[in-house]
Amino acid sequence: MGELSVEKKLQELKTRLLEIDDLTSAASVLSWDQTTYMPPAGAPSRGRQMATLGRIAHEKRIDPEIGRLLDALEPWAETLPYDSDEASLIRVVRHDYEQFIKVPPRLLAELNEHAAGAYQLWTQARPANDFTAVQDSLAKTLDYSRQIANCFPGYDHIADPLIDFADRGMKAESVRALFAELRQQLVPIAKAIATQEPADDSCLKQNFPEEKQLAFGLMAAQKYGYDLNRGRQDKTHHPFMTSFSVDDVRITTRVKENDLSEALFSTLHETGHALYELGVSHDLDGSPLAGGTSAGVHESQSRLWENLVGRSRPFWNHYYAQLQATFPEQLKNVSQDTFYRAINKVQPSLIRTDADEVTYNLHVMIRFDLELALLEGTLTVQDLPEAWHARYEADLGVRAPSDVDGVLQDVHWYAGTVGGSFQGYTLGNVMSALFFEQALRAHPGIPAEIEQGEFGTLHGWLRENIYRHGRKFTANELIERVTGGPLTIEPYIRYLRTKYGELYQAVA
Amino acid sequence: MGELSVEKKLQELKTRLLEIDDLTSAASVLSWDQTTYMPPAGAPSRGRQMATLGRIAHEKRIDPEIGRLLDALEPWAETLPYDSDEASLIRVVRHDYEQFIKVPPRLLAELNEHAAGAYQLWTQARPANDFTAVQDSLAKTLDYSRQIANCFPGYDHIADPLIDFADRGMKAESVRALFAELRQQLVPIAKAIATQEPADDSCLKQNFPEEKQLAFGLMAAQKYGYDLNRGRQDKTHHPFMTSFSVDDVRITTRVKENDLSEALFSTLHETGHALYELGVSHDLDGSPLAGGTSAGVHESQSRLWENLVGRSRPFWNHYYAQLQATFPEQLKNVSQDTFYRAINKVQPSLIRTDADEVTYNLHVMIRFDLELALLEGTLTVQDLPEAWHARYEADLGVRAPSDVDGVLQDVHWYAGTVGGSFQGYTLGNVMSALFFEQALRAHPGIPAEIEQGEFGTLHGWLRENIYRHGRKFTANELIERVTGGPLTIEPYIRYLRTKYGELYQAVA
Repeated sequence: MGELSVEKKLQELKTRLLEIDDLTSAASVLSWDQTTYMPPAGAPSRGRQMATLGRIAHEKRIDPEIGRLLDALEPWAETLPYDSDEASLIRVVRHDYEQFIKVPPRLLAELNEHAAGAYQLWTQARPANDFTAVQDSLAKTLDYSRQIANCFPGYDHIADPLIDFADRGMKAESVRALFAELRQQLVPIAKAIATQEPADDSCLKQNFPEEKQLAFGLMAAQKYGYDLNRGRQDKTHHPFMTSFSVDDVRITTRVKENDLSEALFSTLHETGHALYELGVSHDLDGSPLAGGTSAGVHESQSRLWENLVGRSRPFWNHYYAQLQATFPEQLKNVSQDTFYRAINKVQPSLIRTDADEVTYNLHVMIRFDLELALLEGTLTVQDLPEAWHARYEADLGVRAPSDVDGVLQDVHWYAGTVGGSFQGYTLGNVMSALFFEQALRAHPGIPAEIEQGEFGTLHGWLRENIYRHGRKFTANELIERVTGGPLTIEPYIRYLRTKYGELYQAVA
Repeated sequence: MGELSVEKKLQELKTRLLEIDDLTSAASVLSWDQTTYMPPAGAPSRGRQMATLGRIAHEKRIDPEIGRLLDALEPWAETLPYDSDEASLIRVVRHDYEQFIKVPPRLLAELNEHAAGAYQLWTQARPANDFTAVQDSLAKTLDYSRQIANCFPGYDHIADPLIDFADRGMKAESVRALFAELRQQLVPIAKAIATQEPADDSCLKQNFPEEKQLAFGLMAAQKYGYDLNRGRQDKTHHPFMTSFSVDDVRITTRVKENDLSEALFSTLHETGHALYELGVSHDLDGSPLAGGTSAGVHESQSRLWENLVGRSRPFWNHYYAQLQATFPEQLKNVSQDTFYRAINKVQPSLIRTDADEVTYNLHVMIRFDLELALLEGTLTVQDLPEAWHARYEADLGVRAPSDVDGVLQDVHWYAGTVGGSFQGYTLGNVMSALFFEQALRAHPGIPAEIEQGEFGTLHGWLRENIYRHGRKFTANELIERVTGGPLTIEPYIRYLRTKYGELYQAVA
């Protein structure tokens, strides 16, 4: 194949990929609107419009012509450096294509239709504390999840294909091993803290007017490097980040006027996701290489900016005075140390999304283990509510008064598949410390800079080493490039021991 | 063809039409976002995304399978009542399809690409008062407009196909005749008023805080029947109404804090457009029958609610006290009569969109005549700026100090075709009085109801007689059904003479 022919075929492939990206980005705009501004009665037609865009995009993704173009381009791509834009594009598109074509469109359409109905059921069943109302539907979701997994024969564990969708390269076994190791370290820390007087976080539970909360959060986001020329913040029910191009990446937040930490840390969390997407090289914009490389790596960035920076002493050494000035009445008599302890309060609780840094991962592990058991068939959907309670009592020493904050708590199982949706949260926590430690090694002055309210060096290091690559490298490849080794929990445990050892006895 | 076969083919046609509707509605959401909330840097990718959706929708619109389905269904449709949903669908889809397939996709793509560039040029040329910067581009637009028109051979006037796109059934000759008749009536009225002291509208030019203006406008819109469960109001630069389904119809507005009339009447205007779209029968939702039947009929509804209701004495007999209560400082010493005269001030001016009810149509006629002359070739693009000034001097007795408020004033010629984009504004004014007169004949109590701040009877009549039909009937068919006769200017002239005869001498 001559040069000209390669160029033409590459152009043809890129044109097709750009069209698919336009369709999926359009669907994302519709989804953003749905959860921010759409009037209630617009819901049914909006669901249909999004489904149509999704279906057309999928038809174009599995077009056999893409397979033919890849066949033709691969010999050429193999002559290029592994990390070149072109070689990476061909490699990642091949991976995606093989994944897409293995799931029959009929099965995918059925699952999507089922998921939409299952989600509706859940939105009613949760407030009604009625697990029986979703039980059959969840059993069907589980069945579809198995069918999807079985489109990828040759797995070691039936959850592997589902885990691979979100965290490519991870498997049930490797995640289990990592989680077991982590658990062994975490439980003693959590137990040591549990015996001590919990921090007093009443200073966060006063009345904080919405507008001021939103303004402070957005100020902090902008200080992190979130550019309102390329993004914006809106209110929603369940905060998220969404990207319509490298230059239009939006965050959403939710404000509780009686809880200062809710909107603030949610905003910093979503800002972390957004900085990742905004930092992808413009050369990759509109291609499948734009965006985060895995659920875990994405979460590592949201948690890094939310927790390792946003809940750190250096950050508040600079910004607490500003927060006090924003809420003088509420905070004038609250010392910085009291505030710091409040935002880092550790206490076993029922709700994953409200959990502290130490116990959060135990919530995730419960869900991950239950998912595997459901997929294996060692746990039935009928027995799931009680299995949930039992694990919470065993691992966290708490029991939800009902299924509302039990098995009905998270949307994940009721809006997609069972399997693959939770491990990324904990992988992200582990990676956040791994990456942060590397950044500090390269630039030991980062904490001092944060203490000045500046984040440029940290942001620059992350952009250079993680963000700009987009999906060029898998999580494991990225970790290897950044640290010279595989994923390890050591930096995360070091981080927790150092931080909480200073706050509580018998932790470090 | 048996019954079953008909049903299956009809279903197949509807499925295809729904898919097209989903794509065009999605494009509308993207456009709404672009002009309300999109961060600036999102523009380039947004343009591409909208172009992709438009291209895919067009490919599906001109799919020969639609022609084959129509061929198969027409004999059956002809056995159905003319005004049935099914017969109307087949009839309107046939009309649209024949129109779509006559324009080569290549020409359409070229025109769209050119229009995007031409619009960009205009956004820079207008503030710079530099017509020469857009002259070549406008000449090209004119050439494309002729090419589009020539896709429909057999016309009487080259503008006819372009007029037909917006106002089906109208032609250059019929519009010219109607406009000539109207002009003969309007000019003496305008002249009679021009000799008298203009109304004092300084009461509108005080400082009116944005939030209160927005709230009052939205209150009035809701009183009209605009349901926030099915719509919403947002701010933008150039107000518009947009529809994503029968149950999601949005308005936008622009506030000038030093001009009370700007946002208020713009809101009532867009609400009129919205009530039309919201009133379409749910049975037509998602089909090409949903939406307004022509530019003129659409404008008749915006003008009816803006002017015939919103600038009427009965309306303000009820709402002026509320407006005073909203802006006590500004309006406490302004009598209702002074306010009424201010919002109905007649004075020849330079800007179409700011023009009063009497002179507005003269602005439109100037543009319409210039369009025809350009298309005929009796006027060159080079001579257009001076021709514009000459007509304004002759018709309105004013001359813009530059092209900014002259030939560069309206976006229309710089963002689409030359031809067909202006006649609808005046047709709408004429129809607004025609329809309103019929509503009053059926329900003489409407003014008394408006005086109570209620609009249900008027809204109900319009929904029953106009809105619910969507695009089932052409403008002319609709007028015939509603009035028993053809389009006539008499009601509109009667309306103007009555209203302005009471305000000025020698008018009635």
